[in-house]
Amino acid sequence: MRLEIIPVLGMPEVRPGHDLSRLLMAAVRSSGIHLEDHDVVVVTQKVVSKAEGRMVPVGEGGKAAWVERETVRVVARRGDLVIAQTRHGFVCANAGVDASNVPDGFVTLLPEDPDGSARRIKAAMEAATGRELAVIVTDTFGRPWRHGLVNVAIGCAGLPALVDLRGTQDAGGRPLEVSVVALADEIAAASGPVMGKAEGVPAAVVRGLRAEGPPLPASALVRLGDEDLFPYSPVSEPLQ
Amino acid sequence: MRLEIIPVLGMPEVRPGHDLSRLLMAAVRSSGIHLEDHDVVVVTQKVVSKAEGRMVPVGEGGKAAWVERETVRVVARRGDLVIAQTRHGFVCANAGVDASNVPDGFVTLLPEDPDGSARRIKAAMEAATGRELAVIVTDTFGRPWRHGLVNVAIGCAGLPALVDLRGTQDAGGRPLEVSVVALADEIAAASGPVMGKAEGVPAAVVRGLRAEGPPLPASALVRLGDEDLFPYSPVSEPLQ
Repeated sequence: MRLEIIPVLGMPEVRPGHDLSRLLMAAVRSSGIHLEDHDVVVVTQKVVSKAEGRMVPVGEGGKAAWVERETVRVVARRGDLVIAQTRHGFVCANAGVDASNVPDGFVTLLPEDPDGSARRIKAAMEAATGRELAVIVTDTFGRPWRHGLVNVAIGCAGLPALVDLRGTQDAGGRPLEVSVVALADEIAAASGPVMGKAEGVPAAVVRGLRAEGPPLPASALVRLGDEDLFPYSPVSEPLQ
Repeated sequence: MRLEIIPVLGMPEVRPGHDLSRLLMAAVRSSGIHLEDHDVVVVTQKVVSKAEGRMVPVGEGGKAAWVERETVRVVARRGDLVIAQTRHGFVCANAGVDASNVPDGFVTLLPEDPDGSARRIKAAMEAATGRELAVIVTDTFGRPWRHGLVNVAIGCAGLPALVDLRGTQDAGGRPLEVSVVALADEIAAASGPVMGKAEGVPAAVVRGLRAEGPPLPASALVRLGDEDLFPYSPVSEPLQ
């Protein structure tokens, strides 16, 4: 398997009510990309949120009021940094509320249903091209214990967000020990360097992926409840 | 920027004392890859550890004894799962001790100095090719709050493991809010689908990357101490 990560260039500024799939199709074509079966279209949360009306005026409460509205549970807090669980179950800085690549006085919120967004974009782009596609919606998340942000999948359609290799064998015929791979997160991360936060490239096409197993949405990536070993931070400022 | 992720096929079983760079060069050539300036050679911890003599007999204490020896600090524990900080500062399952893709009765430990491993492989492959290369050594880590493993960088030479975009502007001319990107982790993750745990492909070449900024080792990715909001789990079994 050999992958190509191709930037989708020339996307216009996306505004509420815009038909994002149509804009993506036009930009894909003008980038010289001819979509093929199994291509994965990766698109940032930012333009999905803008198109879906999830760009909002900051208002009197400031960004913090929006962070509070988007937060189901505060996991850690220190100074201006709030690590919060969103209603989707994602744990990330500021519950996904972000002011970069947004006009002054506005912030974006995460899409209401990023898996649904991915499914809709997939359906529209498949109808336009006749190709079987997959779509991943990304955001950039920090990690405990590691500096820097990485692109992760918050929405996924048409491919398995998780690939379960349990029961398969390694190259020597022994069972694999740890073997559930977050494929959608790896594809999202692969697109990160191509999309670049500063470069205004909100989408990319990943070509060459052959994924085994049934499609699985990004919601399957959420690990909370009994499986969550870090439901709150023991050393952050008092949780509210 | 357009990336290609090319698998390095035909690597033989790596044994202690093998010259890993020489084996990689031969496999790169037999895979039909002609290395170019700025190519990133990505190689799994598993073969680096084997070549460096970090494959050890399990012995009487079992794998658990090796996990304990490799652990500087237990961060969380539940049942058989130990999430531990290694002496490098990585926080991962079993302190990086792993039995997959290893002969029966053995486990691998993480390389003593994965950044040093990356530097040595880089120097040897550059000497053999006359090209300017970068090298990333990877392992697969789990994440709190997200299911599945992703490939991450534990060693890095010749490229910035972190790219600091603070002070740069977004496409609209506004300063970027969150803007330190874990580039080495994104490149490691990009290689994950190509390498595949079950497929015996322990290396890949990433072509097309243009990274800005001075080289920075993977040790720069470590976030611990005062910056660590999750120094221990509040809900795991009692820490030892």
